[in-house]
Amino acid sequence: MGVDYTAPVGVFDSGVGGLTVTREIMRHLPNEHVVYFGDTARVPYGSKSKDNIIRYSRQIIRFLQTKGVKAIVIACNTASALALDVVRQEVDIPVIGVVIPGARAAVKATENKKIGVIGTEATVQSGMYTKIMQKMDPEVSVIGKACPLFVPLVEEGFAKHKVTGEIIDYYLDSMRTSEIDSLILGCTHYPLLRSRIMDYMGDKIHLVNPAYETAMDLKHLLKEKDMVNDAITGEHATYSFYVSDVADKFKQFANSILPYDIEITQQINIEEY
Amino acid sequence: MGVDYTAPVGVFDSGVGGLTVTREIMRHLPNEHVVYFGDTARVPYGSKSKDNIIRYSRQIIRFLQTKGVKAIVIACNTASALALDVVRQEVDIPVIGVVIPGARAAVKATENKKIGVIGTEATVQSGMYTKIMQKMDPEVSVIGKACPLFVPLVEEGFAKHKVTGEIIDYYLDSMRTSEIDSLILGCTHYPLLRSRIMDYMGDKIHLVNPAYETAMDLKHLLKEKDMVNDAITGEHATYSFYVSDVADKFKQFANSILPYDIEITQQINIEEY
Repeated sequence: MGVDYTAPVGVFDSGVGGLTVTREIMRHLPNEHVVYFGDTARVPYGSKSKDNIIRYSRQIIRFLQTKGVKAIVIACNTASALALDVVRQEVDIPVIGVVIPGARAAVKATENKKIGVIGTEATVQSGMYTKIMQKMDPEVSVIGKACPLFVPLVEEGFAKHKVTGEIIDYYLDSMRTSEIDSLILGCTHYPLLRSRIMDYMGDKIHLVNPAYETAMDLKHLLKEKDMVNDAITGEHATYSFYVSDVADKFKQFANSILPYDIEITQQINIEEY
Repeated sequence: MGVDYTAPVGVFDSGVGGLTVTREIMRHLPNEHVVYFGDTARVPYGSKSKDNIIRYSRQIIRFLQTKGVKAIVIACNTASALALDVVRQEVDIPVIGVVIPGARAAVKATENKKIGVIGTEATVQSGMYTKIMQKMDPEVSVIGKACPLFVPLVEEGFAKHKVTGEIIDYYLDSMRTSEIDSLILGCTHYPLLRSRIMDYMGDKIHLVNPAYETAMDLKHLLKEKDMVNDAITGEHATYSFYVSDVADKFKQFANSILPYDIEITQQINIEEY
């Protein structure tokens, strides 16, 4: 049985953060249709247990499969770190996360083998980036730092505000004075603070954006599996957005960061899947 | 059938915020046992729909009833605003929220009938404080302002940090230059910023703390219904804490604000109720 290569790619996240991954897919795989699910009823995942993250991921994958997706991107660091290994074995379509592409890019970029990782508490505490990078290169040493205020700052529109600079300083001061030469933006919201963090860290530090790296990995994966959508004609691919709770704020945020305006966002009851 | 006056009071919130109400109950009703439930798996409620808030509240009330509570305090502005009217009709024990006590205190405190309300987006947008206060006194005019960063700032331990002052200025500048003479701290986390907000607003503004007012209302209610626990002996009442997701962070936060250290916090699956 051949795969329907015109089928959409499924992308999911705990909320709006995964839209930074969707944005990279739109930019670099413009022929691919996307079905996005944002779990706005249960956001944030960062403070939740592994068991719950796995249960949520299973429900979302079942939902995305009802939309006939040909591959799934877990565009959420917490879910990639805690659920990917389990759920990828349970379905017969490819599932990729954001942690491995980000880890690989950092290991490739570092020269002194000292890498920093910033993210939610769950991502940093799981040590998943460290484990994966040290499997790729046992000589790599990793410093992690949880920056829990970055997500609400981005979501409340403070990305360019002065206080965000002070909070960046509060969290990243020790990172800046450390010896790292590469820093992973280990939370899907953080690319929206990329220029602020870059200004603060200085240009000697290589910033790794897992959202971009994941889009590149998806590109290679689709090519390798002969699943690239080359049937598309017209303006651009179709993008569908689903959420598990009120869509207004989601839509507003999405339209502020995506190259195309979202017209319809549908709300579904994810607990039914 | 008489009520068991030695039974505990049930208190619930979307997370840790309701602990400020529990703290006031501990202070002012030291003889009352408390069973607290924090819905840490589904926090925050502020961005969720009315339907979901009602569903969550029903589940939590069913859970608290398995603990034999004699009365329930909805220690969450969002749930008080969106679910109280519905759920209080469905159970045969008294249920009170934090909105009515806060509204009553503000209407009593104001002299020029201009009142400010700060809270989550859901609380402010619902206009519930406004509706209730204008029912109590139609001449009252109300200015609302959502301050969505206050909750993460408090939860991440930034209550005393410099940036919190700047964010208070960002949100409350228009409130300070308005004509209000009373300001309701319409989110259970905000009493933890009370002194910062008081410093900023100046002592001409009367700050209304619904957590305190709710404990006072509970005191009157128990007296009125002849449900006061006067059987207690020994050191202090017993306080039990339940959460719907990992308890570590909850416990840490609780111990930072409560007069007694929490020893055990139990995790339950609230979706089963």
